[in-house]
Amino acid sequence: MRAGAERAIAECQVIAAMTEEPGRITRRFLTPPVREVHAHLRARMEAMGMAVRVDAIGNLRGLWRPSHASPRRLILGSHIDTVPNAGAFDGVLGVTLALEWVSLAQELALPLSIEVIAFSEEEGVRFGVPFLGSRAVAGRFDPALLALKDAEGMTVESALRSFGLDPAAMHDAMAAQDAIGFVEIHIEQGPVLDAEALSVASVSSIVGQTRLSLTFTGQANHAGTTPMNLRRDALSAAAEWISGVEALALATEGLVATVGKIHVEPNAGNVVPGSVQVSLEVRDADDTSRVAAVEELLARASKIAARRGISLDQTELLDQPAVPMDERLTSFLSDAIEAAGFPLKSMPSGAGHDAMVMASRVPTAMLFLRSPGGISHHPSETVLLEDVEASLLVARAFLQRLADEIG
Amino acid sequence: MRAGAERAIAECQVIAAMTEEPGRITRRFLTPPVREVHAHLRARMEAMGMAVRVDAIGNLRGLWRPSHASPRRLILGSHIDTVPNAGAFDGVLGVTLALEWVSLAQELALPLSIEVIAFSEEEGVRFGVPFLGSRAVAGRFDPALLALKDAEGMTVESALRSFGLDPAAMHDAMAAQDAIGFVEIHIEQGPVLDAEALSVASVSSIVGQTRLSLTFTGQANHAGTTPMNLRRDALSAAAEWISGVEALALATEGLVATVGKIHVEPNAGNVVPGSVQVSLEVRDADDTSRVAAVEELLARASKIAARRGISLDQTELLDQPAVPMDERLTSFLSDAIEAAGFPLKSMPSGAGHDAMVMASRVPTAMLFLRSPGGISHHPSETVLLEDVEASLLVARAFLQRLADEIG
Repeated sequence: MRAGAERAIAECQVIAAMTEEPGRITRRFLTPPVREVHAHLRARMEAMGMAVRVDAIGNLRGLWRPSHASPRRLILGSHIDTVPNAGAFDGVLGVTLALEWVSLAQELALPLSIEVIAFSEEEGVRFGVPFLGSRAVAGRFDPALLALKDAEGMTVESALRSFGLDPAAMHDAMAAQDAIGFVEIHIEQGPVLDAEALSVASVSSIVGQTRLSLTFTGQANHAGTTPMNLRRDALSAAAEWISGVEALALATEGLVATVGKIHVEPNAGNVVPGSVQVSLEVRDADDTSRVAAVEELLARASKIAARRGISLDQTELLDQPAVPMDERLTSFLSDAIEAAGFPLKSMPSGAGHDAMVMASRVPTAMLFLRSPGGISHHPSETVLLEDVEASLLVARAFLQRLADEIG
Repeated sequence: MRAGAERAIAECQVIAAMTEEPGRITRRFLTPPVREVHAHLRARMEAMGMAVRVDAIGNLRGLWRPSHASPRRLILGSHIDTVPNAGAFDGVLGVTLALEWVSLAQELALPLSIEVIAFSEEEGVRFGVPFLGSRAVAGRFDPALLALKDAEGMTVESALRSFGLDPAAMHDAMAAQDAIGFVEIHIEQGPVLDAEALSVASVSSIVGQTRLSLTFTGQANHAGTTPMNLRRDALSAAAEWISGVEALALATEGLVATVGKIHVEPNAGNVVPGSVQVSLEVRDADDTSRVAAVEELLARASKIAARRGISLDQTELLDQPAVPMDERLTSFLSDAIEAAGFPLKSMPSGAGHDAMVMASRVPTAMLFLRSPGGISHHPSETVLLEDVEASLLVARAFLQRLADEIG
């Protein structure tokens, strides 16, 4: 397994050099380095005996179908686009490992058809909307998305055509509904496995998410001439509330709540803040717990504002339910982790992934690999060879079990 | 007194029309509308029999000296520059009322010499440094200030020369050290007199002030994938501290403490804040109390940072001691308030004024007039006719007492 693990990592490093910006890894949807990645992956897939095509949204898809296999296919994959100044493993490792899974199936002569998809767009960097690649495969690509424009004013539609693709053929991108399922292999992008010294975990669900914007409006005043008891300080109100957000989240198992953004008016050292706008993001695998937490936090904000003679406005920007992974496929993955000799760890994914979109079309599961230091979306993002090797031991057990079940 | 009060207010409205920006009151140091104000005030002063000059820093100065008076003069005045989009009364009312004081002295035939100074620069808007006018009169004008540049790159020196002034003659601006004293009449610019339904107050001191910048540096992380217990959230740390700043100031009589400015990195809704820079401004009439409060707040910041695994940097930007007003002159003013039939109120000034600078050269006192709503530095800044009239009743009692004392 070591050789496969080394190759999967080395391939990520090769692909990392295919970038829009020399010295930094930046590879947005349908930019020139994507062609290089396609050429590179196509050559590897064809050498492995896979049939390769690029679908209408620009996903590169390779199909391995041994003569003795059922036409129902297992789909594997992740994305090959990146954030600006990215690391080498987010997304890409899920593609290079998927090819190692195919190698394993070939070595073991398993009667399994496997399609590997290198999704063209997941990060949402170029057009502001994520998951364009998996939306098309899941049959959830809204044609209105074709009109989105990038920073240069180019639409999705023109970008597709310039790449030599036909947006009218979008339906051909859809995965067959009788696929066995979809498995995405991805780095955790968080510190949990690292903190628990674990190599891999199966993902139980993708957490749901609420995003809100709150505005506390008090009264801007001269910081020297306004006594404390005559102030309506919007920042003091917001600070009291932010402390409460943290306290509630710390006390609620599985919930994260973040105030990441703050805008103060007039934001001058000698003026009592008149208004403060803050972001609130709450995520939880349990929708009931998430909705209850948001309600509690809004109630607290109202109380704080009322007590201080401050007005409060709130706007909900996103309310996205949790997406549970497929129970049966995930149990195969969990069993495989144990069969391969690793401690069983199941955890929710705090970030969104193509798996979240794919789950609406086919049974979907995810395998996480440890992110050392919890670092991702950063050049110092890395993976440990032992973890990649562990994931391949899990893969072997998983593929064997699946072949048994299907056969 | 009503006629004088009405005239003082009407004159402020006349001067308000002399502005750099039609429809808004903006009159920075040595800009064209300052010439209009000078011409207008000079005409009034000369009509009252005063000798008028403009000194080397651009202060307009009118001297009333009756033949039977001592050459020792009472100095009255305030500033005629404004902040952008100002009200009509900040500074200017102290000049128009000073002329009413001269009228009173003339009517009562008091043997008092009175110099009225319309200070050219107090707000620090054009060159970033305040009190240029009173610094020159107090003999504290550092020649290095001549090299300051405005937004257009013009120096103080060129601005003075363009206005027809000679920076080399700065020493002639100095007030004679044997002046009886300086009295500044000014709107409170705060809500205290309004909250207590009082017309006027004598000022006990100008508060001292500490300004600091603090930076909390934690770790920016993905808001979805980083569990609460593995975060080092710089904004949660800052919020905890800001609540403590407010609590300490509320519990400390006479102290105000303000966090007016905050800068968060990366300031994105889906990223745990990595670093937060905040301003701290602490003011108190009692320097010991101010210094103790600053020490306590810095100690609290250190504790919060240490407990959270966050680093803390701090920079002191200003440490300005309180400036007490002259006891004898202030007692004359307080006596005059009572003699005129008003409740005696003495209070510190939370804002800086020319009086703070003048106090280093001559005995100095200040008379505050109520600011309705506590509003200043805003077009809706106003004064009540009854308060202006009250200030003139106080002025009559004060001038009579002073004439008795001098004579």
